[in-house]
Amino acid sequence: MKVTIISIGDELLIGQVVNTNAAWMSERLTDNNFDVAQVLTISDKADAIISVLDGALQNTDIVLITGGLGPTKDDITKHTLCRYFGSELREDAESLHNIEQRFRVLGYELTPINRMQALVPDNCEVLLNKMGTAPGMWFEQNGKIIVSMPGVPDEMQYLMGELVIPRLNRMFNDCAIVRKNIIFQGIGESFLSDLVEEWELALPENAKVAYLPSAGMIKMRLTIFGSDKASAERTLQCEKEKLLSIAGQYAAGEDCENMEECVAKLMCAKGKTLTSAESCTGGTIASRITRLAGASQYFKGGFVVYSNELKESILGVSHDTLEKHGAVSREIVTEMAENARRRANADYAVATTGIAGPSGGTPDKPVGTVWIGVASANKTVTRMLSLGNNRSRTVERTVNNVFMDLIKLVNEECGK
Amino acid sequence: MKVTIISIGDELLIGQVVNTNAAWMSERLTDNNFDVAQVLTISDKADAIISVLDGALQNTDIVLITGGLGPTKDDITKHTLCRYFGSELREDAESLHNIEQRFRVLGYELTPINRMQALVPDNCEVLLNKMGTAPGMWFEQNGKIIVSMPGVPDEMQYLMGELVIPRLNRMFNDCAIVRKNIIFQGIGESFLSDLVEEWELALPENAKVAYLPSAGMIKMRLTIFGSDKASAERTLQCEKEKLLSIAGQYAAGEDCENMEECVAKLMCAKGKTLTSAESCTGGTIASRITRLAGASQYFKGGFVVYSNELKESILGVSHDTLEKHGAVSREIVTEMAENARRRANADYAVATTGIAGPSGGTPDKPVGTVWIGVASANKTVTRMLSLGNNRSRTVERTVNNVFMDLIKLVNEECGK
Repeated sequence: MKVTIISIGDELLIGQVVNTNAAWMSERLTDNNFDVAQVLTISDKADAIISVLDGALQNTDIVLITGGLGPTKDDITKHTLCRYFGSELREDAESLHNIEQRFRVLGYELTPINRMQALVPDNCEVLLNKMGTAPGMWFEQNGKIIVSMPGVPDEMQYLMGELVIPRLNRMFNDCAIVRKNIIFQGIGESFLSDLVEEWELALPENAKVAYLPSAGMIKMRLTIFGSDKASAERTLQCEKEKLLSIAGQYAAGEDCENMEECVAKLMCAKGKTLTSAESCTGGTIASRITRLAGASQYFKGGFVVYSNELKESILGVSHDTLEKHGAVSREIVTEMAENARRRANADYAVATTGIAGPSGGTPDKPVGTVWIGVASANKTVTRMLSLGNNRSRTVERTVNNVFMDLIKLVNEECGK
Repeated sequence: MKVTIISIGDELLIGQVVNTNAAWMSERLTDNNFDVAQVLTISDKADAIISVLDGALQNTDIVLITGGLGPTKDDITKHTLCRYFGSELREDAESLHNIEQRFRVLGYELTPINRMQALVPDNCEVLLNKMGTAPGMWFEQNGKIIVSMPGVPDEMQYLMGELVIPRLNRMFNDCAIVRKNIIFQGIGESFLSDLVEEWELALPENAKVAYLPSAGMIKMRLTIFGSDKASAERTLQCEKEKLLSIAGQYAAGEDCENMEECVAKLMCAKGKTLTSAESCTGGTIASRITRLAGASQYFKGGFVVYSNELKESILGVSHDTLEKHGAVSREIVTEMAENARRRANADYAVATTGIAGPSGGTPDKPVGTVWIGVASANKTVTRMLSLGNNRSRTVERTVNNVFMDLIKLVNEECGK
């Protein structure tokens, strides 16, 4: 089934917002055996919307629209869809109830403009948006599906994940689809692809592999399309085992979206606690860990010791070591990890110190020089990384690397 | 002048790569007074390319194409452009020389497939790609401009920045464009839009307003297109002042992209230092602050006291207060802010404690209940927020709210 994604919003055309929605949707749709033929990004203008919608319906079977459903004057998707379908707006009781409830919780007064968000074209079926106030809308016309969703990423993701994709699957997919994510760390995409080439070439026809690299990690997704779920699951399990026998030393975890999920699963499974001592990553380790619900099960908290003053005063790092070796050194990352572990009374501690840039580099320690460390009651493992001069990428790579070292040490000490 | 961006590449349609090129190009084009009417993302298929190119040339004056210029078989943009224009490929001597030189520097042997990258349609003018091997190509037809560039971000950015935009400016630009971002916090998009409606309706024809909301803040972008820069700047200044006289109490800063930039500018301008004590935001305050280069000028570091144990042990929060009032209370956020400020020896401290959810709520303190606090040497300001049950949004909103309270207190104590 061919899909067109239409992203509506001036903010996308002036470059203020990167179209991550389209990438997220494309990934999920491809996973579910739908073929994304095109992504059309257009402005909040009625003529533009109608013209591309018309074109998309000629070439593709399913049109998914995001954006332009906010309460302000520049959001015109709903009115334009009415014009396109020749329908009228009606107030949807369930959506109004949802909006009222959300405003009550937030303690805001409901204004007429907010109430208008409950208006929907009378030829659509409402997809209740439990994450926000703008309802999703499902249209069918001449055997084609048109869905309109808000552009706010987590609202779109909720509607796509919970309502739209399951329904499209029921309508169009008659085969069982099973999949597994495996997170790899410490190997580049082209190297991983070379390493597993033979396995990949020998995969059965009904198997599909996708590489999804980000800073310092690769998510590999293996999808099996089978006649029934049990046989698809068997193929998946068998191919996964072959893959891990080749590239297992780089695998951080399964059925996770990112490194922090791998860490969370492992720490909870082993019943161990964690703390962090961060200099160059500036709280990003703690932030990524606590982004996941349930982090309090294993994460006690951490120290963001951005200045040398705080490294000494709140972590007890030795003044002499700082003077002698500098803040970016094996000695300091060792003290940071060990002291943090003791002070937080945790089983494990991760620590980072480095020069994220753009300034602060020296000939000896250029921008991108980072020391990472992991401490347990038994030992402390440290490593130096050279990560180049992109500040945000250096932070993300550092966090992914120290998470990998933590996973290795926990596996080593607690058994795989 | 209306522009269409065509992004070619299967990797964009399976969600493997986010289309950051289009955002980068859109921002630069908008800044230079070109109107990006649409971004069309399509696969490496000749029919798709020809069909969208044809459509784009009907609606817009300039078509910028990226992608599909690699040396492998699936890259077919060049051949397709020949087919579209009815032209033939010729070998471009300067491009071949560039390719040979690049291979010499890298120590690689030049293969026939690499040599083919010097082939270009005979009706184009070559834009020499000093960052890579695939040449850019400039076409003119019936008064319209078509440019084809590689999809590798830094190669595209080099060609756009050095060659394409300067040339487009020389051809088309005779007006000045100026703009200002204002960050608003503590007011919803629809409320802000209501509040400034009269001002917005009275704006001159050559002014444009965009609302760019994210969790707990709104970036408003005001753009003026003028006959000359000085008069455009005057209009911008005048309209900005009118806007701030209406909605100034919600303004966090100007010429910033987000709340942490507003905080950074203010703290640096006033020469004050900051620390953080985070429970429910779990390091996100520190992470967002240190994402910006130069954060060490004012940010000393912070405490991520996710567990009650660490609230007591590393921040010295009173056990009795925790027992009596619970971790999510005015009393605890006050102690967190005040103790953090003293322990980090900082001028200001921000603190957060709350229930981000999805679990942990009680009838008294439902999920989304958050206390925030800001402490200076003179006073401590606290506030309770009710933020609903979306974990990540609660964290972002909490951070933006506590940043706003910090900005207010610093402005109050140090003078605006």
